Amino acid sequence: MEFWFKEAQTKDLALEVRVTDILHLQQTPYQKLAVIETVEYGRMLILDGAIQCTERDEFLYHEMITHVPLFVHPNPQRVCVIGGGDGGTVREILKHPSVEEIKHVEIDGAVVEASKKFLPTLSCGLDDPRVEILITDGIKYLENTKGYFDVIIIDSTDPVGPAVGLFSAEFYGYAFKALREDGVICAQTESPFANTKLLLKSWNNMRVHFPHVGVTIGYMPTYPTGFWSYTIGSKKVELKANRQVNLSGKYFTKSVMDKAFDLPPFIKDLLNNGQ
Amino acid sequence: MEFWFKEAQTKDLALEVRVTDILHLQQTPYQKLAVIETVEYGRMLILDGAIQCTERDEFLYHEMITHVPLFVHPNPQRVCVIGGGDGGTVREILKHPSVEEIKHVEIDGAVVEASKKFLPTLSCGLDDPRVEILITDGIKYLENTKGYFDVIIIDSTDPVGPAVGLFSAEFYGYAFKALREDGVICAQTESPFANTKLLLKSWNNMRVHFPHVGVTIGYMPTYPTGFWSYTIGSKKVELKANRQVNLSGKYFTKSVMDKAFDLPPFIKDLLNNGQ
Repeated sequence: MEFWFKEAQTKDLALEVRVTDILHLQQTPYQKLAVIETVEYGRMLILDGAIQCTERDEFLYHEMITHVPLFVHPNPQRVCVIGGGDGGTVREILKHPSVEEIKHVEIDGAVVEASKKFLPTLSCGLDDPRVEILITDGIKYLENTKGYFDVIIIDSTDPVGPAVGLFSAEFYGYAFKALREDGVICAQTESPFANTKLLLKSWNNMRVHFPHVGVTIGYMPTYPTGFWSYTIGSKKVELKANRQVNLSGKYFTKSVMDKAFDLPPFIKDLLNNGQ
Repeated sequence: MEFWFKEAQTKDLALEVRVTDILHLQQTPYQKLAVIETVEYGRMLILDGAIQCTERDEFLYHEMITHVPLFVHPNPQRVCVIGGGDGGTVREILKHPSVEEIKHVEIDGAVVEASKKFLPTLSCGLDDPRVEILITDGIKYLENTKGYFDVIIIDSTDPVGPAVGLFSAEFYGYAFKALREDGVICAQTESPFANTKLLLKSWNNMRVHFPHVGVTIGYMPTYPTGFWSYTIGSKKVELKANRQVNLSGKYFTKSVMDKAFDLPPFIKDLLNNGQ
């Protein structure tokens, strides 16, 4: 007897993983949530049919979405995470000793609860005293915040359903105002191979507000095409390490940081031709 | 009406792509060969159910398997390609002006013929006067060659069927003897995430003969886990660019070459723990 989970990654592409157990299934007010056990990738969190993270490869995503923007900032103290209810981004932020407080804004409390119960290697930092979890709409939260954060990380789901607004110029404008003067923003912006339109849209929308905008890429086996983009904006500081890179992960290193904004020609061309 | 091709990438993982046409199907003396048209990746060559290359992402693989070893060599003149019947590796080698001759050793002539007919963007270099195509067994060919080549590239299929011997210590020994004194070898060695055993085995087997052995990695969307390893051995020269990197591809750049052997910690750990 065989059980498989199939994700329609695009309308023309699908990934299938063998499943050994379905640990949790829930219809939340926002989405369908599942936690399953897979042979290839360990435990996997799925929202509305899309793989969010797996125990085995999540470090590749969480190290890139966190450490690149946090080393662009010269002294990150207050960090906001929009989305990312699994806790992986918060876990990585906590590795930076300068960070004093993390506001973790997740619209769907069920994601946080499921992750605390089933994904302890991701959610392990959520009870840290520096972390405050706010179960609310990230767009409204940032609209009402002024000049408070050093870094904002948009760890959203795909640009369908509740996350659509998180890729808009209007939202990046709220984020700009919610940041202090050295502020840095980082958003996950999908696969540069499978969803080039979304990457271009986010990049152009971020440039409406931020004077410095760059893209970094990294491996991510369980996401469509196996690699992923992160778009980073800065209000003032240049897009490079603005303090000593004294942290090394399983993937992220000083060397990754040194080349973070040094894009391959095919992605440079994509951005330049899409202006 | 929908048509899909499904590749069982491992026993627990599969990739599916939407198919618009089946251009060619053939049982060769060695394997089942198919060329199909897909929406996401353009034309795709499939051998025994495994995706070999697609028009859209092949540059990522062919630029890495070629330019990294060719820039490790101080002056590559004679290059041997074992496998790679689609022609993508030969196309990239021809971009190096120092190269005077390429012996292209492919066991299955049907792969070359199908590529010439259906994949012109890959096979475009196969008629170059510097290229000689030899339809024969690469293992026997190298066993009978002594001190001739500057670079040998093992552009093999997966380690099942006719390609098994291409990952053995015995074969790497033949390659060592077939190289001149500055000689460099490069072999595709599968996904460091899905097939760690094969990468370790190849790395250890190559070290039986070559004093300098390193691994480089790169993106490859249509291969299992979306990233791929290439194991490179050198008889004498250090594993770095040993001449000016004056060539830039769609992915490969001087910057990629500079960091080519600077592996992420999780792959370094894998190699160190598997010794």
